[in-house]
This record gives sequence, C-alpha cells and structure tokens, in this order.
Amino acid sequence: MKNNVQGVTFPKGFYASGVSCGIKKKEGVKDLAIVCSEQMCVAAGVFTQNVVKAAPVLVTVRHLQDHRLRAFVVNSGNANACTGPDGYQDAIKMADLTARTLGIDTGDVGVFSTGVIGVPLPMEKIESGIAAAASALSADGGLDACEAIMTTDTTRKVIERSFEIDGKEVRIGGMAKGSGMIAPNMATMLAFITTDAVINAETLDAAFRYCIERSFNVITVDGDTSTNDSAIILANGLSGAPEIEFGTNNYEVFLENLSEVLEYLAKEVVRDGEGATKLVEVRVKGCAEYEDALQIAKAIANSNLVKTALYGCDANWGRILGAAGYSGVQFDPDLVSVYLGHICTAKNGMGIPFDEERAKDVLSQKEVAITVDINQGEAEAVVWTCDLTHDYVTINGSYRS
Amino acid sequence: MKNNVQGVTFPKGFYASGVSCGIKKKEGVKDLAIVCSEQMCVAAGVFTQNVVKAAPVLVTVRHLQDHRLRAFVVNSGNANACTGPDGYQDAIKMADLTARTLGIDTGDVGVFSTGVIGVPLPMEKIESGIAAAASALSADGGLDACEAIMTTDTTRKVIERSFEIDGKEVRIGGMAKGSGMIAPNMATMLAFITTDAVINAETLDAAFRYCIERSFNVITVDGDTSTNDSAIILANGLSGAPEIEFGTNNYEVFLENLSEVLEYLAKEVVRDGEGATKLVEVRVKGCAEYEDALQIAKAIANSNLVKTALYGCDANWGRILGAAGYSGVQFDPDLVSVYLGHICTAKNGMGIPFDEERAKDVLSQKEVAITVDINQGEAEAVVWTCDLTHDYVTINGSYRS
Repeated sequence: MKNNVQGVTFPKGFYASGVSCGIKKKEGVKDLAIVCSEQMCVAAGVFTQNVVKAAPVLVTVRHLQDHRLRAFVVNSGNANACTGPDGYQDAIKMADLTARTLGIDTGDVGVFSTGVIGVPLPMEKIESGIAAAASALSADGGLDACEAIMTTDTTRKVIERSFEIDGKEVRIGGMAKGSGMIAPNMATMLAFITTDAVINAETLDAAFRYCIERSFNVITVDGDTSTNDSAIILANGLSGAPEIEFGTNNYEVFLENLSEVLEYLAKEVVRDGEGATKLVEVRVKGCAEYEDALQIAKAIANSNLVKTALYGCDANWGRILGAAGYSGVQFDPDLVSVYLGHICTAKNGMGIPFDEERAKDVLSQKEVAITVDINQGEAEAVVWTCDLTHDYVTINGSYRS
Repeated sequence: MKNNVQGVTFPKGFYASGVSCGIKKKEGVKDLAIVCSEQMCVAAGVFTQNVVKAAPVLVTVRHLQDHRLRAFVVNSGNANACTGPDGYQDAIKMADLTARTLGIDTGDVGVFSTGVIGVPLPMEKIESGIAAAASALSADGGLDACEAIMTTDTTRKVIERSFEIDGKEVRIGGMAKGSGMIAPNMATMLAFITTDAVINAETLDAAFRYCIERSFNVITVDGDTSTNDSAIILANGLSGAPEIEFGTNNYEVFLENLSEVLEYLAKEVVRDGEGATKLVEVRVKGCAEYEDALQIAKAIANSNLVKTALYGCDANWGRILGAAGYSGVQFDPDLVSVYLGHICTAKNGMGIPFDEERAKDVLSQKEVAITVDINQGEAEAVVWTCDLTHDYVTINGSYRS
C-alpha cells in the first residue's frame, strides 16, 4: 500500500473525518467517524446473522430499505448492543444528530457502533463528537475516519482501486475494522466501501453480495460471530462514467475490482487477528459441492488445535484431517491428501515421509497455505484464518478491564 | 477421592496392569495397559462420530458386534489414526497378541490407542508391552492401568461406586483419560467402566448410552472431536446379585450410580482440560426443546471469547449472550437473562448494574456456573467446559515436538 491511500475518500465526492470524543478510555484516541457524499448514493449492505443484533444494525437495516444513503456515522469503544429500547433510541438519535448537522434526512444516515457489549452509549460524548466530526469533514479525511473505527486493531485497513469504464475513470475506496470476534458470516467487523460508479441499487446489491460471500464471509479469527457486523457500499455516481449494467463486460470489470477491494480488506482483518502471527489460507478441493468444501474449510480454520499447531510451526497434519473429519461432511478419509504449502504430508488418508525442516520453514512464514484434497469431486472453497497465540489469550482475557 | 481408589479393578473379578514399553519418548513412563475379566462380560460401547476413525476404533466396533468382551488393551503415545491398511492390521495384531497371551479369542479383546495421529505403531514395542502387561495383571492394578492410558493428562481420573441390589453389593469402577481435543460427541477421550452387575447386553447398552449423553457428550475443552474417542463398559456378572432388568427399580439404582461414575469422569476430564484453571458449568434453561438448550449451551461453552474472559475473570456477559445469539437457535434476545454464579448480570437482554468485585470473586473460583435463561420454555441443558488459557496455547503449540 502507498502511504497516500485514502480509502473511502478516494472516489469523487466523498468526505470523511475522524475525531476523539472520549468514548474510549485512552485520551485523544479517535472514536467517532462520519463519512458523507456530496450527493445521494444508492447503497447496499449485509449484516450479522446473530439473533442478538445491536441497535445500530436494526436502525441501519431500516434506513437501507429504500436503498439510499447519503452519509454514515460510526463510533468505536461501545457496541450499543444488548442495551434494550434505550439503546435503540440512542442509535436513532445518532443518525438524527448527524442528519441535522449535515442538513440531510435521518433516514439517509447509516449508524454503526463497535466495542464493548451491554453498556449504554455515552450520548453527551457522542453528541459533541458528531458536531466535531461534521465540521472536520474533508476530501482527504479517509484515514482519520479509518483510525476512528478501530478497536483492538493494530493496523489501519484501507484500500483504493480505479479502473476505466469506456475511457472514464471509476474509483472504489474502502476501509474496515475488526480483529477479534471474527467468524464466517461476518464478525465484529465493519467494512465501508465507497464508489463513484454509476450503478442502480439492484445491480450494486448483487455485486456486493457476490463479493462479500467470497471475502468477509470466508474469514475467521475465533469462530465468534458478533452482534454488530456490518458491511455497506455507497455509490454516488459522480465518476461521470456510463452506468454499469448487470451482466455486461463493464459489470465484470466492476465485480473484479470490488472483489479485490473486499478480499484485500477481509485478509487484512485476519492478518490483524487478535494476537495473530500469520495469515493462513485453507483451501479444500475435490468435493462434490462448494458447500461441502466450505464446511470442511471452516472446520479446519476454526479448530483451536490446528491454529495452535500453526502458531507452533508444527506440521501436525493429523489435526487438519481430524478437523475435516468432524466437519459434518461425509467423505472417504482414505482418499484424502493434505498439503502444507507445496509439501504433501498425507496421501490416501495416511502420513507420508516429508522433510520436517522444510515443513517448519513453510509454517514459519507470514502467510501459510493449507490444502486438503478430498479427491471426490471438482468443487473447491477457500477460507482465511490466523493462528491462535498466547497474545490472543492475553488480549481477550482482559478486554473490558 | 480416597487414596485407595482402584477404578476398573474395584468390581469383582477384574484384573489390570500398566507398563512402560517405550512408545512414549520419556523413559519409564507407562504407556500400555491391559484390563481383563475372570469370565466373559457383556459389553457396550460408544465411539467417535468423526468420519476419520482410528484403526483401533474400527476393530473394537467389530469386536463388540456380539456384545461380548473379556479384555481390552490400550496404548498411549500413538493414536494409530490415519495409518491406512497397515494401521488396521496393527490394531488387529494388538488384539491378537493380547488374546494369545491371555488364552482367549481375538474377537473378545477391545483395542484402544491415543496419542499422536499419523505415525505407524511401533509394533515391536507394543508386542513386548503386551507380554509384560499380561504377566503383571493384578486385582489391584487399576491405578497402573489408569496411568498407562494418560497423554497430556495431569491427573489420574478414577472412580468407584457400590450399591446394593436386594442386599447384595454391586460395584462399578471407572477410569478415563483426555484433556485436549475434547468436544461434545466424544474426544481424544477414552473411558473404561467395569462392573460386576448381572445385566443383559441390551439393558447395559441402554443404560450406558443414557448416561453418556448426559456426561461425556456434554463436555468440551476445545470443540475438537478426535479420531479415537471411545467409551466402553464391561459387566461380568460376578457380584452374585440378581439380574438388573430394564425399567425396574434396580435399573434406576444402577442408572443413578453409573451416571455418577460417568459424570465424575467427564468433569474430571474437563477440569484437567489442557491449560485449564477452572471447571465451568454452562446451564441454559427456558428453551422450548432440550436440543435447543443444548445447542445454545455448546455454542457458549465453545466460544473462545467466553473462555478467555473466564480465564481473565472478566464478567463479560455480553460475549455469553453473543455466543447464544450465533448458536443457530432462534429466540427473542429481549427476554434473556444471564447469571454468573448467583449474580444476575443481564435481564431482558440488557445489562443491569451488578457488583463487579463480587462477580470477579465468583469467576476466580475453581468452579464457575454460568446460567442463561432464555425465558421461552421449560427445557434445560448443561454443558461442562473449561477456560482458554496461555497454557493451552503453549501445550498445543508444541505437542508433537
């Protein structure tokens, strides 16, 4: 990444800011962001499948019903989850305060919160934060906004891509946060994508869901799906390029770029997984159905025994095969091969001799690939995860304190 | 537990031994056990649901088809899993060697292995171990056998119970091993129960399955179900008491005592969970169906975020409610209460003020009770788990090395 990457303010006509308003304990740390478009956007979003949904999720889903948003507000340090009817009112108030300050409709504002569960939002701080953030909005405020949405994240996760549609430049920018409570089907994970593409709501929604399935829905840090997961995309049409229509070549180009943006952010979230020392790609191939491959890959990616072995650079392929075996998918274990990087460690369900030193070397890298070939079909799935480390335990043993 | 607890040799007519034959790296550590009955037993067993089943599991399931066993042999240090056709032949040979030495039929011998996956059994060592163990069989060898089946276990898990049937004493003894790779539906967990009760195969099977569902199938250390899980019970009828018939009062008494034995061993396995500092009882009540309550309890008990919070003595009830929410069971979160010990931390889905110091004190105990009341029915389930600690990561980051 270049240093001047802006993320959400990279596409034309988007403004952003991030300020500190005292929600987080540590003084001066940014904890409230606003992102706003010069003109109305078509928008799409995907949200947590947890039956315990945070108040801001409920409000934003409602505001997205007309597939339009013009701005969104995000606070970190407090998830506004399990906060009852008062929490719901607080989420509406966050949207309302933001809308008034920006002179737009409440229903055109998305609301997002991330942080500790079960504590009422400090509304006075939120109120002063919104006022400060609104007056700090700027065409190069993308990084400030990105910093303001972080919780246990140790890196800023921003990206931008541009491409041409009939000779006109179209831009996509994105930012994300999340490092614990990350599981397939979203996590304490927020992702915000902006684009100046001209695209209708239905097409945008289709493209976004397609890319989310192959990015944020196939990552896992700890198997915990949070109450606040949200990912949204806003398209304001200011590129001046022709409309991207479903099924066209231009749509494919848009899809490809959007995929790259989302995959990059999703992998950044895993790479920055709480305590993680490496990014692990789990590829399961040779299944009859994609869903089977995905289910096996998720079982492996969520196995604490696999993840601690990866941490210890231990070529313990038996745990990988063991996790595949309890995934719930039926297969013939006597046909399965297991690879660490390019090293085949098991074939036909049995261990084969391999160079332990080379395997240790593969496992010591920052990026590790595990491939399990079920050898019973053509379908393949990929899931990204990280290792389970002492630091994960340290971080999560004392999160609230 | 009294010091003179023998476990499997407590019932009349059972002999056991445990010897060191060099399977484990550390010299002199016991790694092979034989248990044998004076006369033929009716037997029942439950085994791993993992599709990757270790060779000894396949062999023992076959030997149990006639519901009879007279002896069993167990090695630790090597799981004989993912070892292909040769591994299967090795498991048969283990049974065969044991049978010959004892002068009984191969089909009347159960075979069990636990330890590292994917490495061929060292058959010469096994052979000398079986010879040594057979000649060491003794009526007070229960503890030696128990030591010989341990892997990462830090405690011996043995128990015995006696009760009267029509004035005659009936005895049940048991031993178990297991501390990692423990998940509902069995684990790298071996449990062996002996009794001198007079009981037919069908009744024994019914009683055993009933008690397993409420003991070993509701514990979890790390959510990993192993390739080798096995639990068996042998009844040799030598008590001289009347036969225990299904549905009678005597059956209820037997069930009660067998339940106590299995629940004790199951909880001991969790208490000794790899790196665990506490035993955690997760009780979910107020569900429409038992299966719903169980599914929610398992999600909570397997949540790394809940388990690290327990380690850190952090009253982070939001993670508990969050895990309930992603369990896959539908419920109204606005009706749910969460208790840590007797302290109510959330009511109607919302946090309520509670004494953090008292909560920390509750969480600092060796045994912690979490209760989640869904408040939408009468069904209730209990799952036992432990906390997730730095030591778990240390132990599992370097198991093979």
